[in-house]
Order: sequence, then C-alpha cells, then structure tokens
Amino acid sequence: MSGDQQTPRMTNLPVGIDADGQRQEFDSMGTVDVPADRYWGAQTQRSLLHFSIGDDRMPKEVYHAYGYVKKAAALVNAAAGRLPAWKEQAIVRAAEEAIAGRLDDHFPLYVWQTGSGTQSNMNVNEVLSNRASQLLGGTLGTQEPVAPNDDVNMGQSSNDSFPTAMHIASVKEIDEHLLPQARELAAAIEAKATEWTQIVKIGRTHLEDAVPLTVGQEWSGYAAQLRACIDDIEHSRSGLLELALGGTAVGTGLNAPSGFSRDVAGKIAELTGTSFVTAGNKFMAQGSLDPMVRAHAALRGLAVALMKIANDMRWLASGPRTGFAELRLPQNEPGSSIMPGKVNPTQCEAVVMIAIQVLGNDTAVAFSGSQGNFELNAMRPVIINNFLHSARILADGMEKFRTYSVSDTELNREKIQQYVDESLMLVTALSPVIGYQNAAHIAESALADGQTLKEAALASGHVDEQTFDSVVDPLSMVGHGVSGA
Amino acid sequence: MSGDQQTPRMTNLPVGIDADGQRQEFDSMGTVDVPADRYWGAQTQRSLLHFSIGDDRMPKEVYHAYGYVKKAAALVNAAAGRLPAWKEQAIVRAAEEAIAGRLDDHFPLYVWQTGSGTQSNMNVNEVLSNRASQLLGGTLGTQEPVAPNDDVNMGQSSNDSFPTAMHIASVKEIDEHLLPQARELAAAIEAKATEWTQIVKIGRTHLEDAVPLTVGQEWSGYAAQLRACIDDIEHSRSGLLELALGGTAVGTGLNAPSGFSRDVAGKIAELTGTSFVTAGNKFMAQGSLDPMVRAHAALRGLAVALMKIANDMRWLASGPRTGFAELRLPQNEPGSSIMPGKVNPTQCEAVVMIAIQVLGNDTAVAFSGSQGNFELNAMRPVIINNFLHSARILADGMEKFRTYSVSDTELNREKIQQYVDESLMLVTALSPVIGYQNAAHIAESALADGQTLKEAALASGHVDEQTFDSVVDPLSMVGHGVSGA
Amino acid sequence: MSGDQQTPRMTNLPVGIDADGQRQEFDSMGTVDVPADRYWGAQTQRSLLHFSIGDDRMPKEVYHAYGYVKKAAALVNAAAGRLPAWKEQAIVRAAEEAIAGRLDDHFPLYVWQTGSGTQSNMNVNEVLSNRASQLLGGTLGTQEPVAPNDDVNMGQSSNDSFPTAMHIASVKEIDEHLLPQARELAAAIEAKATEWTQIVKIGRTHLEDAVPLTVGQEWSGYAAQLRACIDDIEHSRSGLLELALGGTAVGTGLNAPSGFSRDVAGKIAELTGTSFVTAGNKFMAQGSLDPMVRAHAALRGLAVALMKIANDMRWLASGPRTGFAELRLPQNEPGSSIMPGKVNPTQCEAVVMIAIQVLGNDTAVAFSGSQGNFELNAMRPVIINNFLHSARILADGMEKFRTYSVSDTELNREKIQQYVDESLMLVTALSPVIGYQNAAHIAESALADGQTLKEAALASGHVDEQTFDSVVDPLSMVGHGVSGA
Amino acid sequence: MSGDQQTPRMTNLPVGIDADGQRQEFDSMGTVDVPADRYWGAQTQRSLLHFSIGDDRMPKEVYHAYGYVKKAAALVNAAAGRLPAWKEQAIVRAAEEAIAGRLDDHFPLYVWQTGSGTQSNMNVNEVLSNRASQLLGGTLGTQEPVAPNDDVNMGQSSNDSFPTAMHIASVKEIDEHLLPQARELAAAIEAKATEWTQIVKIGRTHLEDAVPLTVGQEWSGYAAQLRACIDDIEHSRSGLLELALGGTAVGTGLNAPSGFSRDVAGKIAELTGTSFVTAGNKFMAQGSLDPMVRAHAALRGLAVALMKIANDMRWLASGPRTGFAELRLPQNEPGSSIMPGKVNPTQCEAVVMIAIQVLGNDTAVAFSGSQGNFELNAMRPVIINNFLHSARILADGMEKFRTYSVSDTELNREKIQQYVDESLMLVTALSPVIGYQNAAHIAESALADGQTLKEAALASGHVDEQTFDSVVDPLSMVGHGVSGA
Repeated sequence: MSGDQQTPRMTNLPVGIDADGQRQEFDSMGTVDVPADRYWGAQTQRSLLHFSIGDDRMPKEVYHAYGYVKKAAALVNAAAGRLPAWKEQAIVRAAEEAIAGRLDDHFPLYVWQTGSGTQSNMNVNEVLSNRASQLLGGTLGTQEPVAPNDDVNMGQSSNDSFPTAMHIASVKEIDEHLLPQARELAAAIEAKATEWTQIVKIGRTHLEDAVPLTVGQEWSGYAAQLRACIDDIEHSRSGLLELALGGTAVGTGLNAPSGFSRDVAGKIAELTGTSFVTAGNKFMAQGSLDPMVRAHAALRGLAVALMKIANDMRWLASGPRTGFAELRLPQNEPGSSIMPGKVNPTQCEAVVMIAIQVLGNDTAVAFSGSQGNFELNAMRPVIINNFLHSARILADGMEKFRTYSVSDTELNREKIQQYVDESLMLVTALSPVIGYQNAAHIAESALADGQTLKEAALASGHVDEQTFDSVVDPLSMVGHGVSGA
Repeated sequence: MSGDQQTPRMTNLPVGIDADGQRQEFDSMGTVDVPADRYWGAQTQRSLLHFSIGDDRMPKEVYHAYGYVKKAAALVNAAAGRLPAWKEQAIVRAAEEAIAGRLDDHFPLYVWQTGSGTQSNMNVNEVLSNRASQLLGGTLGTQEPVAPNDDVNMGQSSNDSFPTAMHIASVKEIDEHLLPQARELAAAIEAKATEWTQIVKIGRTHLEDAVPLTVGQEWSGYAAQLRACIDDIEHSRSGLLELALGGTAVGTGLNAPSGFSRDVAGKIAELTGTSFVTAGNKFMAQGSLDPMVRAHAALRGLAVALMKIANDMRWLASGPRTGFAELRLPQNEPGSSIMPGKVNPTQCEAVVMIAIQVLGNDTAVAFSGSQGNFELNAMRPVIINNFLHSARILADGMEKFRTYSVSDTELNREKIQQYVDESLMLVTALSPVIGYQNAAHIAESALADGQTLKEAALASGHVDEQTFDSVVDPLSMVGHGVSGA
Repeated sequence: MSGDQQTPRMTNLPVGIDADGQRQEFDSMGTVDVPADRYWGAQTQRSLLHFSIGDDRMPKEVYHAYGYVKKAAALVNAAAGRLPAWKEQAIVRAAEEAIAGRLDDHFPLYVWQTGSGTQSNMNVNEVLSNRASQLLGGTLGTQEPVAPNDDVNMGQSSNDSFPTAMHIASVKEIDEHLLPQARELAAAIEAKATEWTQIVKIGRTHLEDAVPLTVGQEWSGYAAQLRACIDDIEHSRSGLLELALGGTAVGTGLNAPSGFSRDVAGKIAELTGTSFVTAGNKFMAQGSLDPMVRAHAALRGLAVALMKIANDMRWLASGPRTGFAELRLPQNEPGSSIMPGKVNPTQCEAVVMIAIQVLGNDTAVAFSGSQGNFELNAMRPVIINNFLHSARILADGMEKFRTYSVSDTELNREKIQQYVDESLMLVTALSPVIGYQNAAHIAESALADGQTLKEAALASGHVDEQTFDSVVDPLSMVGHGVSGA
Repeated sequence: MSGDQQTPRMTNLPVGIDADGQRQEFDSMGTVDVPADRYWGAQTQRSLLHFSIGDDRMPKEVYHAYGYVKKAAALVNAAAGRLPAWKEQAIVRAAEEAIAGRLDDHFPLYVWQTGSGTQSNMNVNEVLSNRASQLLGGTLGTQEPVAPNDDVNMGQSSNDSFPTAMHIASVKEIDEHLLPQARELAAAIEAKATEWTQIVKIGRTHLEDAVPLTVGQEWSGYAAQLRACIDDIEHSRSGLLELALGGTAVGTGLNAPSGFSRDVAGKIAELTGTSFVTAGNKFMAQGSLDPMVRAHAALRGLAVALMKIANDMRWLASGPRTGFAELRLPQNEPGSSIMPGKVNPTQCEAVVMIAIQVLGNDTAVAFSGSQGNFELNAMRPVIINNFLHSARILADGMEKFRTYSVSDTELNREKIQQYVDESLMLVTALSPVIGYQNAAHIAESALADGQTLKEAALASGHVDEQTFDSVVDPLSMVGHGVSGA
C-alpha cells in the first residue's frame, strides 16, 4: 500500500519527542488526542481511559519481549519481499530500542484490559510505527510512512503475538533471574550441609523428639528439594519454548505467508540465543495457556520447598532462651519497636510470605487457564502478570534469603549437643536388641521419672551397661550419607 | 527522659529536607547512612537494603492510616501527661502530614519484610520523629528532641499498631471506594432492570433454551447479587472496626497505661469519623488476623458475583452474527489488530480477570491467616497488601465496567423476540394441561422435524389451537415481579 | 389429570420391595430396566449408568432435606386443591420416610451428574412416586397412581427445588452438628483459660522470646477466635434461610400457582422448626449460589482459626526433651512404629489437615460459585458436596479434638516457670524507665555473655537493684484481663 | 527375638476369622478390645475410637500398595537372614492377600489421623501379623509367632514406608486408570478431528465472530492439549518412582541394615513391574512431599485442559434454537423435571465440576506440601487422599465423557455453514489488499446496515466483485494443517 512513494531515509534522531500538549492520532474508530511527547497512538489512549484500574501495569518485560517479536517479524517479512528494506530497518531499530527498555515510558497500559492483550500489542505497534516514522522523517499522527497495523503488525495478530511475547518474557525471567538465584541458594545450602556434615543433632518428627541425624543431612534435604525444583522448572520451561506466532487470528495463519511460523520462530531463537521453536499446534497455542499454567506450577513447587526450608530455619532459630535455639541467624536489624534487643527471623518470614503469595498467584493462574473459549483464552494479562510477579519475588526473595540469612547462619553447638544428650528417642536403637515393647517402656519410665535414657534402661533390666553404651551411640545412629540404609 | 530541657518551639517549616548526599542515623545496632533528603532513619534504611524484593511496596494507605494511630497516641499520651505538649503538637502535625499523603515519598519499604510490619512502623516512627524534630529545630539524626521509639511509638508496639493501621486502611478503602462503587454499579443495573422490565426474552438453563422471563427480571438477579454482597461487606467491615491498639507487645498492654486501649480507639474514631472501638480480646487481635480473612472473603463474594454478571453480559453480547447477540455493548475501541471491525467485550473480560485475581488473592489471605503462631500472626504485610489490592481493583473495575459497559448496553430487540418465537421450551406451559410426557414428545418432534412448537402441538392431537394460544403465551409465562410464584 | 379414577386407599406396607431381578420403568425417552428391589425409576437408572464416577455419592442429607421439600409441596398443593388428598397423604408419608433416612438405599446417585441436580430431584420424584404408588396399591413401573413429574414434582423444578434442598441440608448440618461442636470446643477452651488465668508464661512473637502473659490470656485468644467464627457462621446461615422454591424453571414461577413461594417456604419452616423464608429474588436464588459461597467462607474462617489453635498446641507440646514442652497433651496411642515410647500430637495434626482440606474445598466452592450462566448456576452438586463435607469434618474434628486433646491437656508448670525466669525480654519493662536504646543494649549483652537479665542490667549501670526488682516483675507485666491496657 | 522356638508350619486357612464378640489385643500402652472377626489390633482400634471423623477412609489403594512394601521387606529381610523363612512365607502370603484386596475389610481407618500415616502402617502391621500368625497356627492377640512391629515392620518406619506406599499407589492409579483414560479420550478427539478435517466453520475469539477454521483444526487443539497433559503427567510420575523406604525414622536408615534401601526398592520394582528406585536423598523424601505436589500439579493441568474442552463443547451445543447450536451432543437422559423435551450437556457439566474439584484438591495438596517440619511432613493422609480422589474422578470422568458425549457428538452442518455465510470477519482477508482501516469500515457498515459482507465491500468502492470472490474464500482462509502459516 505504502510502497510506491520515494524511499525515505532513516535519520539518527534520539529517542524522545520534543513537543508538549496534545497530538491527534487516529484509528478505525476516529481520532483521539494523546500526549504530544509520547509515541503511542489512538488505541493506547483509548485503553488508558477505559482501563485505569488499580496500579497494575503490564510488566515491562512483556514489551521487551514484544520487541523481539516485532523485530523478527520485520526481518522475516523483509527477507520475503513483503516489507521494503527501509521500513524494515526503521522498525528493527525501534524494536531494538524497545528491547533495550528505552521506550518503557511509552508503554503505560494496565494489566486489566482486553483479555487477548490486543491493547498492549497495539501499544507496541503504535509506538514502533511512530518511532520508525519519526526516524524516517514522517509526521507523527499520520501513520505514515510506517503504519501500526499494516507494517509493524504485518503477518501477525495479537492472538498469536501476545502469547509469543508471554513465553519470551517468561523464559528470559526464568533464565536470567529465577534459575540463577535458585542455583545459588541451593549451592549455599549445600555448602552449609558440607560444613555441618559431622554435627550430630536430634531429629524431630511430628515436632517431637526423634532419633539423631547430622545437621548436614538435614540441610542436604533442603538442597535436594531445591535441586528437584530446579529440574522441574527446567522441564516446564521447555513448554514455553514453543511459540504461537504464525497462527495469526485463530491459529490458521490467515494473512501470514506460508513458512512464516517456522521462519519467525527461528529468527527469535537467533536473536535471543534461546532455542525457541514454532508451536506444533497453533489452536492449542492460542486457545489455551496450558504451558503457562504448567510453568507456574513449577514456580509453586519452588515456593512449597522454600516454605519448608524457611519454616525449619525460623523454628530451629527460635529463642534465644525459650525456643529450639539450634541455629543462630544473622542479626540484620532490631526486631521490635517496643522490646529492646529482640531479633527476629525476618528473612524467613519474608520467604514464607512470598511462598504464600506464589500459591495465591498460582490459584489465579490455574483458574485463568481453565477459562479459555473457542479460539482464544482471553485471560492472558492476568496470567503473565502473575507469572512474572511470582518469578520476580521468588528470585529476589531467594537472593536476599541467601545473602542475609542462609550464608551467615551459625550453629549453637552447645544446645545441639545438649539435646542429643537429653533425648529419649535414642532408645530406638535398642529396639532390635530388646524388642519394641520393652524399649517403649524404658522411654516412658525415663520421661515419667525424669531419668536419663541410660538410667531407665539399666533400671529396666533388659540391657546391661556395656550393651547400652555400644548400641546407644548417637554417632553410629546417623548412618552414612544421605540415601538411607 | 527528654522532658527536662527548655521547651522547644515549633516552626512552620514546609515538608522537605534541603540537603543532598547522605546523613548518618542510628538505632540500637549502630549507625547507618541514609539519603540526606529523606526523613527516614536507620531501621528503614536497613530494611531497604535487606528486603528489596520485587516491586511490591507497602501500600501508601497503610501509612496514611498509621498517621491516625500516631496522632491519636500522641493526643492521648499528652492528655495523660506522659508526653509534653510541645512534643505532642509536633508529632500531631507530622502525623497529619502523613495522613494527607505529604510524606509518601518517605515511606519506601517493601511488602516482603518482617511479618509483623515492624519495619513499616519504625519507618513511620523515624519519619515522624525526624519531621517533628525538624519542626522543633532539632538536628536530624540525633533522635532529638523527638525520639522514634520513646516518643512517637510511646505506649505502642508494632504488634498492636500495625494491625490497627491495617484495619483503619481497610475500612477507609471500603468506605471511600469499594462500597460507593458497588452501590453505583448496583444502581446502574437496577436502572437497566427497570428499563427492561417488560421485555420478554427466552431463559436459558444449562446454556440450553428454557422458558421465558423478562430482561428486567434477569438483570434484577444481578442487582440482587450485588446488594447481598454489599450487605456482606458491611457485615465483615464490622469486624475491622475493632482495633488492637493498647495490646502492645503481646496483648497484655505492657508499657501502655491503663485505659489506653479505650482512649486511643475513641480518639481514632473521633479523628476518622468512623465508629472504631477497642478490640475486646487483644490476644485474638494480635495472634490472629481473622477479621481480615473474613473481610477478604466478603470481597471474594463480590468477585464471584461480578464474574457471573460479566460472563452473562459477554455471552449475551456474543456475535454479532454467530452468537447470542441479545445485547449490544458499547464499542469503546477497535477489538483486533488483524480483524478489521471487530469489537470485543473488553470491559467484561477485565472484570473476569479482576475477579479471578481476587480469588487468587483470597487464597493467599486465608492461607496467611492460618499461619499465626503464639502471640503474633507474622503474615501481616502479605495480607494487607492483598486486601488493598483486591479492594482497589474491584472498586476501579466496577467503576469502569459501569461507565464503559453497563450504562450504555442496549438490547437487540429483534433478536430477543426472534428467540422467543422460535424456542420450543414454551411447551412447558402445556405440561399442567396435557402432562409432562406428552409435552416432552411434542418438543422432541418439533425439534426433529424443524417445526414450530405450535405446529408440532397441534399435530400431536393433545391440544387444540384455542387452548394452545391461550396457554402458550410468553407474556403470561413470565409471572409477576422477581419473587417467583 | 389422574384425578378421575376411584380414590385409592393407602395401605400400611413397610418400606421395601419384595422382588428380585429387574423391573421396567419408563420416562419420556423410553423404557429402562431397574433393580426390582429398588424404588427408583428410569432417570435414576440412566444417571447411574452414565455417571458412575469415583466414589462420591450425593450426600444423604440432601435427600433428607428433599423430603421436606416434597412434603411441603404436597401439603400446599393439596390445600389449594391441586392435588387430591389421597395422593397428598401417600406422598407425605413417603416423604417422611425419606426425611427419616428410611429410603437412603434408594438414592444411589453420584455427585458428578447434571449440574442442576435434576437427576437427584428425579431420583426423589421417582422413589417417592413409586413408594406412594406402592402404598396406594399401584403397580411399580406404571407411574400410577402417583406420577413422579406431575404429582411429586408438582409446581416445582429441579432449578428451584435443588437449591432449596441444599439450603435446608446445610442449615440442618450447621444447626445440629457444626455450631454445637464449635460451641462446645469454645467452652472447653474457655474453661482452660479460666483454670490457667494466673499462670504466667513467656510470650512469643516471631517465634522468639517476648514479654510475659498468662496461659489463660493466651487461651482466651483461642476462645475469642472461635466465638467470632461462630458469630460469622450464624450470620452467613441467615443467607441460607432464603429458599428458591417457587421460582420453578427460571425464577418466574411458571407452572406454580400464585402464592406458592410464600406458602411452601412457610410450610418448610413449620416442618423443620427453622425460620426459612422465600427468597426475595428468585433469579438470584437460581442463577447464583452466592449464599452457599458465603456460608462456606464462614466455614473456612473456622478452619483458619482452628489451624492456629491446633498449631499452637502442637508446638507448645513439642518435646518432651528438645522442644517447647509447655503443654502435655494426652497420650492416646503409641506414636511411632519404630521409635518406642514416642507420643505425637495426632489430634492437632488431624485438625490441621482438616483445616487445609476445608481451604481446598473452599477454593472449589468459590470457583464453582463464579461459574453460573444465565438462569442457572449448574455447579450445584460440587458445591453442596463440598459444603457438607467441610461442615462434617469440621464438626467431627472439633469433637475429637476437644474430647481427646483439649480437655485433658495439662501444663508443664516447671518448664513454663523456667522460661519466665530465663527470658531476656522482660527488659521491655525497663524501656520506659531507662529508654529503648539502653534497654536494648542490656538484653544484647546478657545474651552475648550468658548472663541473666538482672545481672546484665545492674552491670550496665542504668538501673539499681531496687528499681530492677520493682519494675521487672513478670506478674505485674501481664496486665489485667484480656482487653489490653 | 522370636526365632528360637520350633519352626511353625504354615496352614492354608482361608481369609477370615470365625469368631464374634470381642478379642483382646495389646500394644505398648496396654490392652484394647477389638471386634473378634477382624485382624486388626490395639493401635487400629485406638485410632478408630479417636479419629472417627466424617466419612473419609484411607483409600484402599494405599493398603494394596502397602502390601508390596511389606512383601518386599519380608523378602529382603529373609534373604539377608534377619527374618526366618517360615515367618517370611507367612508375611508374604498375608501381604499378597492385602495386595489383592482380600483384606480390605480389615483396613477401616480414617483419613484424618496422625499426619505420618503411622496408624495406617500399624493397621497393616497388625493385620498382616495376625493373619500370618493365624496361618502359622498362632493365637490372635498374642503377637505370636509374628509380631507387628518387630517382624512385619522390620527395618521400616511409618516415616519411610507410608510415603513409599503413597508413591506406589499413585503410580498404579496413574498407570492403570488415569493415563489409559486420558489416552483414550485424546484418541477419540483425534478421530473426530480427522473426521471433520474439511468442515469449515467460523472461529470465535473473545466469544465474538472471527475468521474461519475447520472443525478438525479446532478439535486438534483439544487433542494437543490432552497430549501435552499426558506428557506432563508422565514427567511428574518419574518423581514418584523414587521411594523413601530405607530411610526409617528420620532418613538415616537407623535399624535398617546397609543396602536395605536399594534392595527393597529393587524388590518392589520387580514385584510391581514398575521401575521404582530408591530415593537419592531420604531427608527430602521424608521431610517433604514435593513429588506428590508436583504430580498433583500435573493432574491439575489435565483438569484445566478438560475444562476448556468441556466448556467449548457445551457452548457449541447450546440451543437448540437460541444458542450456538453447532454441535449435537448425544441425548442420554431427559434434561428437566419441569421442561419437557429438554436435553442438557450433562457430561460436560460433570467434567467441569470434576475439574473444579481437582483445582480445589490441588490447593489442599500444595498447602499441605508446604507444611512439613524438620524430618517429617505430617500432612500425608490429606495429600494421598486428595491425589487418589483427583486421579480417580478424572479417569472415570474422562471415560464417561468420551463414551457418552464425545464419541457420539455430531455436527449441525447447516448451522455451521450458515454462520460462515453470515459472518463479517471474513473481511480480514481483504486487509492485506485494501488496508486494515478500509476493511474495518466495510465490516462496520455491513453490521450497521444489515448487509452481507460482499454487499458492503462492493458498496465501499475499495474492491471489485472478482477480487472479493477470489480473496474472501472461506476454504482458502483456513490454511493447511494445524501448525499455522
């Protein structure tokens, strides 16, 4: 349509519009005034008016990801001769600015908008077309020489491009923040497990005294939980590598040329350095958001594990005088506005709250995932916002938890030893020797009479001192390593 | 402690600190550098360092509410002679600035912090003490003449003051935004119900054709749902009127003088114009967050109702050519980046997504509510953040939904009439006359043969034309009013 | 329709069918073989075939409640002359047998069936019509002389009668089991609070040592939580008192006579002795299940409170040698298959698991409540099944928890006193005397040096012994009563 | 202990105890009367008394799985010389009877019991020891010659054996019911997709008319969703193959001999024909239930997909006269007790309710998974009950849905064609030819004026008839296959 004018030449204008007041933009429904110093157009402005709900803005990461979508589409369209090179270059440059976050101020829309994400796609189309037109010497508001729908959105629909941007943004968040932080936390815990591999402590089941293990064994369990979570996140990430782009409006690829799906996914893989591929079934890719639901379930798995770990740490650090008091957490800040000298397990509490938030977000994501109809699941904004929220607070939370709590946690070795000495559950080791029932009666009488286990055992007549000493040896009760008997 | 120096005189310095670089502040753990142009002190700065997690900041509404707490405490303490009048006046002035939002830039902390909210309480104590000290000519960083713990926090703990601020902030959000918007939406729907009280339409159960009702009756159901939700929110709000303040650290009121609970609640009631009272049991008020859980359940009830209403509207508006097409929603924006002329039920989709988010938030709130231990539920920040988030997006969402969707929704009367004419379920009216089984066979043969109901009825021989016409009259089948037979 | 034959006379045949093999029954779709010794008919049998999913059967309480619906309808229909007295009497007798549970074996259907509950309504209609026909000397399988749709279902639809039965069943469960057990548990806890009103113990916030309170104060908080939950359940119960009956198919009351709504609700109120009324808006009453969602939210509130209480108890009972060990729970059973003499807080664990199940059920109920469409919410079976499940396990769980744990819980007074003696947080009482910062440093140095608080306080030079002894007095630090300062 | 008496000889007594009244059994706490015709002992009876809560019984599948645990342990213990062969043989025989379900009546315990599952483990120990003793001619109630703790439980704890049984039961349910049914449903849908591969229909996004696709493409999306869910279930199943057995009380393997973990897992793999292995880290395997949480998340993924599919089907079948009416679902039963001839999408509704229940169960499972403490997650019963419940209703629900709905669903081809003819969104194909804005105006004017798309297009002057006919060809708009452009 707009290919027959003389080829415009791209300038090197910096990002920004030197104007104030309002500028008129238009779309198929008519004209709209927009702030003159913003690149967005009529549809963005309409959305801003109709959907100013709360403070939840579409995450910037979605727009950065969209930059890859638009850049890849322009490159593929140009290579196939559908888009002139001069338009391609301007769109690519604008898209690169979006990727770099330099256009963030021009993406103001709210999460609570159309369920397809169309308004955010149009926001991108409008901003990139205006920015490209500006670079090409065009007049903002004319959609010339680069038009938002016909050029920037060429061969695309919101219905395929928005879930593509969701997947790109999610994978980048996973790769750049979540997994690195999860791995660092696991490593920090593994270092502690190694450090404390020989420290015998009393085990607890049902919160009650049980048989001994080492602190290192206990912490090895935490690390194993995290490592399994990391595996699961990696597995669910593989579902996010499949991109809907090329399905266009309903999955059939209408208005996109043959091969577009494959080419554009390949281009995105090249640009991002990540092994994205085109989705095998575009009707699933657009009618459902199942891979996002699964990926969030993997985040939830991590939250579940973190909650166990953080809870264990804060309970084991409880005290200092009237709790378990096995751990000494670093004292990062005064704990109370009224109780002087109080220090609290605040990093653990933050992790627990984050975990609970992720479980709540997960409920919202799964519910949303179930609410697709026909060729579209129109719950996309709520899903991507919750996913990125969860990933972000988990990653940051793990970083802070590691830095300000795990790494500087120390053992209260006297207390740990005292518990081993006092516990009655070492009687378990006698069970194979004297039978379960006899052993039980020894433990009960020790508790009732305030005896040590040894006193009660010898008094029972079921065991002599030499046998007792050789059998009831905490160090020999902790086995070898982490894989049980 | 600091009452024996000469009485300082309050100046009229505007809000703000004319300084740059860093300023040294201290707390019981030592000194910390803070930005020189901020009022906060050492503990706020420590929290900023240790808890920079995601983008979730403690909502400003909590600090505005805290302004009432600090102002009321200062007034009550001064009236009882525990706080000199010159300190009282400076703290009151600073608190009023907090209430008015003029100190918002000085409350930077994250949601993910200590579970008691102590860091936000200390943020308030530090900012108000520095602001008060500034007004009194003191030097920032000295905690003189007004000290954060001893003066601003006098007679309080985070453990009682933070849930007090939670309740105040929640009630204000309910009173000022949520309930007004809910009532306006209910009224807008009631207006539509009245307008359409005589329009007969086909009912649908199981998504399938059923017997007729009027559009007004259908919309009366929506309004009745909202009115019941409003009642329930009001009921749950009554639990939020009970304030923990006066329980101090663990509910016993240690370090607060006798009568402080009652006096300070009365003062807050007076200052806010809201009937707050002191909680009858401070151990419940601090060890649980049950009233917040209940209040959020009431928000969830609203979300559940809104989802039904928004879903009905978007399904009834589906089409325009291949859906139900009974309603015409206003066309606020182009619907598709690829399909020209498409208009979508975007306001309904936003409401549905908001409802789902509120259900997710509700999961987080209830889970958090269950995780209290001993004298404290240390899940407060996650609860207040979710509560205010839910209340806010519900209120704003209802406003936009009403303004941009409900109010300008129109009927497609031709389509509505066509459905009434074509439906077979009017056969139900024949059931008392010719029996259920005979009526069933008439409906089945009409469907199988593509007949109208009347054709099939007469062909069955069970009814004559006169009887049919008198019995199968849609208008007479819709009954009277909204309360059934 | 079937009123012109000679009046049949009711016999006194006991419940049961003396037959084996199969009997043919019919409905509008044709004939079906049913077990000859069962009263149900064709539609029940079809449902059994098509919906044998899992082990979840529609709860018997629903059928007992339906007995009231059918009895009341027959009485009202007969009083108005629509149903002959001889039919009325037979239906009433059959309905009374259903109410008494004597027909339970004839209600076999699954929860996972049609979303309106129609199949269970038809099950009731078929069973009562066959039982009534049997009493009247009719032949089973003929629908004579009492027909399921025309007689037993007269003036009703599943759409109004099923939610009516849901409300009746729910209110009865609340009244007969849930509230009595909640009140008994609250009373048992209050008795403990009274018993232990003078026992000073150390408080804990953030799991960490805090200032003292009495055991009675702590337990008063539990009781206050339960009392508030009871209030909330009573409030939500009021929404369940509104009955949909009289709305028939879509809320208009088609085929039910004028006044039927009011009359039949009045009759149900009379028969049940409960203040049921007809719902003000039948379109809400059938298109939504909001009152059920709200009532389940109240159950969830109870679950949240119980989880706090049960968790506190099991933590405070942890040990016996390496935990908090303040409480001694009754030893009801051996705790471990391998560790002799181990006793675990099993009742507390059961309560915690029940609470979690109720939270999960609540998610299902709220989600279901949001999924209504047009004139019907077709998620009824899943909602009533979850509601009755939650109410049942809460009630039974509270009974067992009270009987086998709360009532026989005892204090370990030595341990409790030891903690008070050792704790450092009594320093808080010094804060108003010597200032927060000085007090903080005393606590810190006591902890660092293993001193008692008094030793560190005197060493600090900030306080003399006489002052210390008069200020740091645990008994004087617990205040008076439960309402704070 | 009990190895030195003369070797008893195993008889061939059938299952069952020919006695009535009560029999005395004992455990470490004393004697208890049990029903004389039941194999269980004192601890089972105590649990029955203390935990009769609701109707939720520990699923039988857990006991069948436990049969493998006890059989494998006996075989391994005997092979190592720790258990005499005559005991081994009797225990093995009893365990095989448990596996076969022949002892189901002897496993009566409730879900709501000790959180470790100890009571169910002891139930198994007691039943197998009594049954083995019976086979060996012993006297019930003496724990001779086979003792529950020392013989049947040899080398095991509930803490490692119960999660082992959970994993075995879950994998069997997945392998034997869930995955086969999921695959059959996917295949049935794929058959429909193939059958309807050429039928062009109108697509819908946002519930609104969109561009065409084929019915086969739409259904291919459903199948692709299911296939991805199957993959994910298989992935999560791999986590369940790791068994805790050999960790004994706290993960160290105390009282189990070296190599027991590996040997017993190998034996279970051999007996079940499933590739079970010993868990690499026993502290994770007993302190968490993370693999169960992940496996349930995979079930939830299936529920999310099924909800989309069932919802699409019921909406597309809505009507028959006033809905979408594209599909004709099989008519399995009359739909209404009051509206004759009504047929409803009841199988779809059942699937939707099942999906919602699974989401609710998932909330409970994830919450429970987060609540482990130290060496035990004591939320096992609630997790396994929810897992088996979800798996069961999903499997049965899919079977019924496939058999009674999917397989006999037919197309209403006239309606489908009519929609294609009437839709305006075919205008999208014109967009690349005449531009998005012009195309939009054509669609809008067609809608406003009640024109066909062609009429409005020609009237616009932007396109001639020949171009229109060649471009706006539904068949050419559906692309090729399922992978988009």
